[in-house]
Amino acid sequence: MMQMLVDRIKKDGVIKHGNVLKVDSFLNHQMDIELINEIGKEFKRLFADCEINKIVTVEASGIGIACITAQYFNVPVVFAKKSQSINIDGDVYSTQIESFTHKRTYDVIVSKKFLNPNDKVLIIDDFLANGCALVGLIELVTCAGASVEGIGIVIEKGSQAGGEVIREMGMRLESLAIVDSMNAATGEIFFRDADKKE
Amino acid sequence: MMQMLVDRIKKDGVIKHGNVLKVDSFLNHQMDIELINEIGKEFKRLFADCEINKIVTVEASGIGIACITAQYFNVPVVFAKKSQSINIDGDVYSTQIESFTHKRTYDVIVSKKFLNPNDKVLIIDDFLANGCALVGLIELVTCAGASVEGIGIVIEKGSQAGGEVIREMGMRLESLAIVDSMNAATGEIFFRDADKKE
Repeated sequence: MMQMLVDRIKKDGVIKHGNVLKVDSFLNHQMDIELINEIGKEFKRLFADCEINKIVTVEASGIGIACITAQYFNVPVVFAKKSQSINIDGDVYSTQIESFTHKRTYDVIVSKKFLNPNDKVLIIDDFLANGCALVGLIELVTCAGASVEGIGIVIEKGSQAGGEVIREMGMRLESLAIVDSMNAATGEIFFRDADKKE
Repeated sequence: MMQMLVDRIKKDGVIKHGNVLKVDSFLNHQMDIELINEIGKEFKRLFADCEINKIVTVEASGIGIACITAQYFNVPVVFAKKSQSINIDGDVYSTQIESFTHKRTYDVIVSKKFLNPNDKVLIIDDFLANGCALVGLIELVTCAGASVEGIGIVIEKGSQAGGEVIREMGMRLESLAIVDSMNAATGEIFFRDADKKE
């Protein structure tokens, strides 16, 4: 658990209908760059023993976090794109992911030029809920013959299956904050291991 | 002109059918974070005299550049979102922008919570072509009563009208590289003021 992040979620996170946690005032619409810098540092600390040569994320809200984090690893970022663009070569790895937030399915693609068997990848994303986006990203990376060395998530929704699914795949997953439950009536947010010291 | 960027475009930019310049190996699919750091520094140098308290961009490829740049200004980033999301409050500023690259029209929105009359905004984006995205962003910012202090663009397509449109609006626009023309047959890319020393 990253205490600074937990405190910020408690202070500025808003619980919305449908088990949605809004953190758009500091993470995924307006972005507090100072906090995201600390998030990048924390990912570096957690994955310091990993040999990473690329960070992979998916547009849109993962990109800023991935770019700031990449500064601490001195590696490039590749972001998977949602839906076909005429600017992408036909030569792409593609998969479909279902968005919990948007209630729709996206085609997600990465140009084959930017993932290869030598890549040791750290996947970064802002949220982990049902895990569909993450499973899709893992699929893109492994299709390229690259290896997923680790997965760094800012906020995991502990009440949804994603975290368990990914950990059962044998992946090394580090979530900076795990929200176990929320009380929409009182606005309380309960975190896993919240009583433990860092 | 930012010589390091011009050199990189000459080296790794690829001319595609339809006057499209692909820079996806370092700017908007795979991202060279070291280069983007230099881009952030250059924007800070160019707008050092401006009082900026927020950076505004539009998803997706502007986000990483905006976040890295924001570190030099010590300000938050707000990125406008494409199309309605159930996670966005009804209370949004919205406009429509037509994408030159994707040949389609998007609804672009910013939550009213994150733009207000006290904001002195630097708009950042990767490309300026026909200017539609930028005119849309300017509209969102001015609708909120905020002021556009400056606009920083990584690559301007000098053969398209956007730059002229924005400058004629009286906006302070700084483009780090202006591509005046491209020769698809030879792969040559011609830059404005390329012979001038920085």
